[in-house]
Amino acid sequence: MTYPTRLLLLGAGRSASALIAYLLRHAPQENWQLTIADLDPTPLVPVLVAHAAYARAVPFSTDDATHLDELVQEHHVVISMLPAFLHPAVARVCLRHRRHLATASYATPELRALDAEARAAGVTLLMECGLDPGLDHMSAMRAIHAIRARGGWLTSFKSYCGGLLAPDSEDDNPWRYKFTWNPRNVVLAGQSTAQYIENGRLRLVPYHQLFARTEPISVPGYGDFEGYPNRDSLSYRPLYGLTDIPTMLRGTLRRPGYCAAWHALVQLGLTDDSVRLGNAATLPWSEVVAGCLHALPTPHESVADQAATYLQFAPNSPEMQLLTWLGIFSPEPVGLANATPAQLLEHLLLQKWALQPHDRDMVVMQHQFEYEIAGVVYSNTASLVVLGDDATHTAMAKTVGLPLGMAVRRLATGHVAAYGIVIPTQADIYEPILHELAAAYEISFLEGVERRLTAG
Amino acid sequence: MTYPTRLLLLGAGRSASALIAYLLRHAPQENWQLTIADLDPTPLVPVLVAHAAYARAVPFSTDDATHLDELVQEHHVVISMLPAFLHPAVARVCLRHRRHLATASYATPELRALDAEARAAGVTLLMECGLDPGLDHMSAMRAIHAIRARGGWLTSFKSYCGGLLAPDSEDDNPWRYKFTWNPRNVVLAGQSTAQYIENGRLRLVPYHQLFARTEPISVPGYGDFEGYPNRDSLSYRPLYGLTDIPTMLRGTLRRPGYCAAWHALVQLGLTDDSVRLGNAATLPWSEVVAGCLHALPTPHESVADQAATYLQFAPNSPEMQLLTWLGIFSPEPVGLANATPAQLLEHLLLQKWALQPHDRDMVVMQHQFEYEIAGVVYSNTASLVVLGDDATHTAMAKTVGLPLGMAVRRLATGHVAAYGIVIPTQADIYEPILHELAAAYEISFLEGVERRLTAG
Repeated sequence: MTYPTRLLLLGAGRSASALIAYLLRHAPQENWQLTIADLDPTPLVPVLVAHAAYARAVPFSTDDATHLDELVQEHHVVISMLPAFLHPAVARVCLRHRRHLATASYATPELRALDAEARAAGVTLLMECGLDPGLDHMSAMRAIHAIRARGGWLTSFKSYCGGLLAPDSEDDNPWRYKFTWNPRNVVLAGQSTAQYIENGRLRLVPYHQLFARTEPISVPGYGDFEGYPNRDSLSYRPLYGLTDIPTMLRGTLRRPGYCAAWHALVQLGLTDDSVRLGNAATLPWSEVVAGCLHALPTPHESVADQAATYLQFAPNSPEMQLLTWLGIFSPEPVGLANATPAQLLEHLLLQKWALQPHDRDMVVMQHQFEYEIAGVVYSNTASLVVLGDDATHTAMAKTVGLPLGMAVRRLATGHVAAYGIVIPTQADIYEPILHELAAAYEISFLEGVERRLTAG
Repeated sequence: MTYPTRLLLLGAGRSASALIAYLLRHAPQENWQLTIADLDPTPLVPVLVAHAAYARAVPFSTDDATHLDELVQEHHVVISMLPAFLHPAVARVCLRHRRHLATASYATPELRALDAEARAAGVTLLMECGLDPGLDHMSAMRAIHAIRARGGWLTSFKSYCGGLLAPDSEDDNPWRYKFTWNPRNVVLAGQSTAQYIENGRLRLVPYHQLFARTEPISVPGYGDFEGYPNRDSLSYRPLYGLTDIPTMLRGTLRRPGYCAAWHALVQLGLTDDSVRLGNAATLPWSEVVAGCLHALPTPHESVADQAATYLQFAPNSPEMQLLTWLGIFSPEPVGLANATPAQLLEHLLLQKWALQPHDRDMVVMQHQFEYEIAGVVYSNTASLVVLGDDATHTAMAKTVGLPLGMAVRRLATGHVAAYGIVIPTQADIYEPILHELAAAYEISFLEGVERRLTAG
C-alpha cells in the first residue's frame, strides 16, 4: 500500500460547498486524507459522517498561528478558501514547511515577492484557480493558444464576467441582481479609476463615470447584459503574452438597467465609504438622500421627485423605479448608527438583494476576440453560462470550487511541474481542468461563429 | 538665578521660520534654552550664530527612537513641527518622560486616546495651535463667547480659510494660486464626501461634486473668493459647544474660477491616486487627457477641443484657459514613469505653481455668524488677511508659527492650567495669543458690521 496524501482545506464557508464535495468524491480513489479547518466546523459534521474514513473537520482560528503551523506541517497540500488578505501569511507557513498551496485568489505583488523563495524550496504556490481569476485565464488562454496555433495575432480581447441570477429567479427584483458573493465588494466595486487600452491608446475611466460607460453584451439563450470596465485590464497583458495587443478590456457584467441606476447611487454619493455620518439608526432613508441633493429639498415636493430632477431622470423612468424599489426615498430608518453612506447602502441591500433558499444564481462569462490571420481580420466569442441549483449549491460555488478542486488534484498527483507562483495560463494545467469541467460537470464554453471582418 | 527652561523643537523646515524667530526673540528674557532638532540643521547654523548663548541645533532623524527619547528627556517642553503622522509616537515619548508637548496638528482620535494617561501624568498635550487648526478655533471662540455673553444663540456658523497669493503676486498665474503648503494635500484635497449641516439637515457632497458647489465670499479690500466645503464640519460642533446649531460649515477658499477648473480636472479623473498607469515618462500630457475622454479622440480635432466638448466648456472659456495654461493639452512629456494621475498632476503643478522668491503669499480667513438675541436675528463676519514678505517669510509660516510660539510661551511659563489633550478653545489660552498677535504682529481679525436680519 501507499501512504495517503494529506490535504488541508483552510476555510469552509458556503462558497466552499462545491470544492468540498469534489474533494470528498475523489478522496477514496486518490488515497487522500482530507482535513477541513474552519472557525466553526459544526455544520460539516453531518456532511462528513459518510466520509469518516478519509475526512475530518477541526476547529481552527486564523488568529492561532501555532495551530496553523502545526496543521500545515501535518499535511502535504494546503488549499485556502480564507479571505485573500490572509494568503501571504499562509504562504509563508507553507514555505517554512515546504508544502504546496492552492487558492482561488489573486497572485498579488506581496505573494509574487515569495516566488524566488518558493522556487528554491521546490514549493508550488498555485494561485488564481477559481472563477475570476481562474476559469477566465484557462478559457482565454485556450482560445488565444488556438489562434496563435493558426498563425494569428490578437488585435482585441475583451472579457466579461458576472455573478447574476438565473432567469427564473429574476422576476421579483427589478435590478435582476442579488448577492452571490461579498456584498461589501459589490457596494464598493470600481472605487478607483479603471484603465484599459483601446486601439493602442490608454483609456481611463474615473469612478464617477464608470457605471455610465457600459457596453452591451449578448449571450445566446440568456439575453442581454451590460459590462463596465474593471479596475485594471492592463496588467493582464504580460500574463497572457499580449504585450502588443491594441485593445484589451476586462469588465463586469450586469443586466441592462442596473448600471444606470447604480450610476445614480454613485452620483448621489451613497457608495462613499470614507465619511461616517454621525447619524442615529433612526435617520430616515429619505433624509439621507435629501442630504445628497444639490440644494436643500423643499417640503412642497417629494424627495424622490427632487432626486429625479437632480439626476435628470423622468419621475417614472426605469432608473427611478429601481431606486424607489430599494426604498431609498422612503421614511424607513437606516438601521445603523454613525455609519458611512456605503455601510448604510450595504445594510439596505442585504435585505433587498438576499439570495432566497429557492433562488438560483447564474455565472456568465464572455470572451470577445479579434485577430488577424494572413492579413484577414476575424472575430469570435466564447461564452459560458453556469446555473446554480439553489442558494447553497450556487453557480458561484461551483465555478470557484470545481476548478480549484481539479487544480488541487493535479497538484497532489504531481502533475503541476512548476515551482514558485503558478497561475493556470499553461496548457498542461488548463487543458485537463477544462476537459474535466465539460466532461463531468457540463461546464463548458460555447464558441461563437467566427466572422470575417475584412477581406484578405 | 533660576534654572533655564529647556525647549525642544522637533523639525525646522521652511514652515518653521516664523516660529524659530519668535522663540529666539523671547528666549533671553524667558530664560529659555532652545534645541532645534532637524534632519539637516546646517541651514540653521548662520541663523543661530547670534543666539549661541541660548540656542543650538542638533542633527536628528525621526527613525532614531533612542535619540528622540534622550532629547525629550533632556527638555521641559517639546514643540513638534514634524509631519502629523509622527505625533502619536512623539506624544508617547513625552508621556513617558512627563514632558509637555505643543503642535499645530490635529488632535486625532489616536492622540485623544492618550488623554486620560496624560491627565494622570500631569502632562499637557497642547494641539491645534497653528493657523487651521489653531487661529480658526481661537478667533471663532472669541466671537462665539462674545455672542453668548450678550445672551445670544448661534443659528449659523460658516468658516473659511485659504492659503493664497497676495494680490501683487497673482498676475502671472490665471489660477491665482501657488503652493504654500504640502502640494500633495492640495492635489488630493477633498477626496472624500464632505458633510455639513444646513437648517438642521445633514448635507453630503460627494467628491465629484465638491468643486461645483462653492459659495462666493468677499473680503473688504481683498476682493472675491469662493469656498468649497471641507470634509467634516460636523465634528466641530461639540468642540465649539454648538451641538444644537442648525447650520455649520467649514470650507476652503480659492480665488473665483479656480474651483470650476479644478472640477474639470476631477471630472477628467486627473486627481485620482488609486491606479498607476504603467506609463513611460515620455507619455505626452495630451495623451493622458485623451485617455480620460468619454470616447477615443479623433485625429481631426485637437484634444483640447474634444475635452472642451466633453466638459461642456466653450473652447475659449475661462475654465479652458486655466486648463490650457497648465499644459495638460500639450505634447510635453509627463516626466514620471508608472505614476498615478494625481502624481502626474502634482509633478506638473510643482512646476507651474512654485512660489518664486519674490512671490508673497496671503492667508485669508473669514467667519460668518448668524445669531439670535432676544428674538432678533443678526449676522456678522470676522475676517483676517495676512500677507507674506517673500517666499521664505510667508504668511503661512507666520500664521502657523506665531500662534504656536505664543502657545508654547504660555505653556512654558505655567499659564496653561489643563492637563491632557488641550486645544485653544478656552479664553485663558486664546485671549493672550490673539492679543499678542494683534499688538506685536498686526495680525488681527476685522469684525464686520452687525446686521439685523429680522425684526424683534
